[in-house]
Amino acid sequence: MRTVAYLGPEHTNTHMAALAKFGRKVEFVHAPTVEEVFHLVEREKADVGVVPIENSLEGAVTHTLDRFIDFKQSPVQVIGEILLPIGHFFITRPGVPLGDVDTVYSHPQALAQCRPWIQTHLKRGISLNETHSTAEAVRWVAEGVGDGKSFAAIGHKEAARQYRLAATPIRDDRDNRTRFLVIGLKDPAKIGRSKTSLLFALKDKPGALHDALMPFKQNRINLTKIESRPSKRKAWEYVFFLDIEGHSSQPAVQRALEALKKTTSMVRILGSYPMASGSRKSPE
Amino acid sequence: MRTVAYLGPEHTNTHMAALAKFGRKVEFVHAPTVEEVFHLVEREKADVGVVPIENSLEGAVTHTLDRFIDFKQSPVQVIGEILLPIGHFFITRPGVPLGDVDTVYSHPQALAQCRPWIQTHLKRGISLNETHSTAEAVRWVAEGVGDGKSFAAIGHKEAARQYRLAATPIRDDRDNRTRFLVIGLKDPAKIGRSKTSLLFALKDKPGALHDALMPFKQNRINLTKIESRPSKRKAWEYVFFLDIEGHSSQPAVQRALEALKKTTSMVRILGSYPMASGSRKSPE
Repeated sequence: MRTVAYLGPEHTNTHMAALAKFGRKVEFVHAPTVEEVFHLVEREKADVGVVPIENSLEGAVTHTLDRFIDFKQSPVQVIGEILLPIGHFFITRPGVPLGDVDTVYSHPQALAQCRPWIQTHLKRGISLNETHSTAEAVRWVAEGVGDGKSFAAIGHKEAARQYRLAATPIRDDRDNRTRFLVIGLKDPAKIGRSKTSLLFALKDKPGALHDALMPFKQNRINLTKIESRPSKRKAWEYVFFLDIEGHSSQPAVQRALEALKKTTSMVRILGSYPMASGSRKSPE
Repeated sequence: MRTVAYLGPEHTNTHMAALAKFGRKVEFVHAPTVEEVFHLVEREKADVGVVPIENSLEGAVTHTLDRFIDFKQSPVQVIGEILLPIGHFFITRPGVPLGDVDTVYSHPQALAQCRPWIQTHLKRGISLNETHSTAEAVRWVAEGVGDGKSFAAIGHKEAARQYRLAATPIRDDRDNRTRFLVIGLKDPAKIGRSKTSLLFALKDKPGALHDALMPFKQNRINLTKIESRPSKRKAWEYVFFLDIEGHSSQPAVQRALEALKKTTSMVRILGSYPMASGSRKSPE
């Protein structure tokens, strides 16, 4: 039986993503941090790991990106991706009216995503408290101090069910989806269309970013994502994360990557993996 | 006398940046959020505002970037930048040994920047609590519940001095600097070398990012920064923030911006302003 590590605790969105991908016929292990998920995979305590990488409203999960920059020698590669529509629920003890709530707990990403709803539906001057996960927030409401009647959490309805709390869907017509990466030590099977994730650093010369992107255009390879992060070695020096369509074994991709190596100071292929349906965005 | 709004409270790094730029001959107003700093400038309650935009270790301040995307009709423009070396201090009540500390309060960016120091110097399993500002964290230690002996904050030494707390410098040989933007309604004077900030969205076609960068290379204009953020209109659609060298009144910059308008679906110039010394990075 395969072991799947995920950013926990149970009933987080990462847990839901892992369940959606691997079903119930695997053993799940949850880890408290992104770092720990990588660690479990590196030490072969888990066969694969699931970590969030970006949200369609709030952008990159910088912890995950930085783990790839900081651990250059890690044998971990990206072996898959999962896309999950995110539906948040407003969770209170049963029978608590919205107007009684004066403190809302949740993960900072969930609080940020629900800010418009909070401003419309809750009283002014409400206190927003950050927790490590949406699941922890729900536990706070269930086990909170005092009568707990003025506390609410934003989280997943599964977590509310576990503690027998009331859950109201937070409606938002914006397209809220999170993309997760599956990490592992072994190359994944080549099924359907592929995507390749890589990172690179630029040479110190004008036009360097333009030149780095040129080989992809010349080889008609679509970029689906570019993200810059500080190198942490030198101020205002960046590392770029790139997702492209295609597999690193395809001749056009190989030609582009060879050319990229010549024009940049560092290239690291993070992995080629099957593209999740709905993952392709407007091409760049 | 000019009024300068900044992301407060007093003794935050943004306050230090505002003091470094404007000295003491202006009136300072602090605001609790980035949003509120923009608001004060838009309603002419302040002549200029100071907000953080990126840190050399932790990357973009996404709140500030998103304010430019979300409020397309805002008359606010970028009129300057400030670079501030960041030195964090470990702040406790006087005479508290490091080994007694079991809870550290600070702003999430400061906690993230000091993670290596915390792991080396403090006991394992320490609790890290996020506050809205480093100044608020210091106030927690000064006014904390109980005897407060096991609490510490990471913040500025000015804040420690205000509350008569002990402050030890957190040494870190990485280059830690934060860049702040000065925002206002009036064009700044053109002094020395200029920088221009802009944002754009791509057309839905392959090679679109490459094509968007081409006019800058052709006109020999250096990019000092590129950052992508979700558009929030459609999943996996991004808006790009670009900083370039040069002033929007210069012919080469005008030619590049005209060409950029043809190849993208939206361009917004956020402002041209004098480049702070030390702001130029390795060119892209």
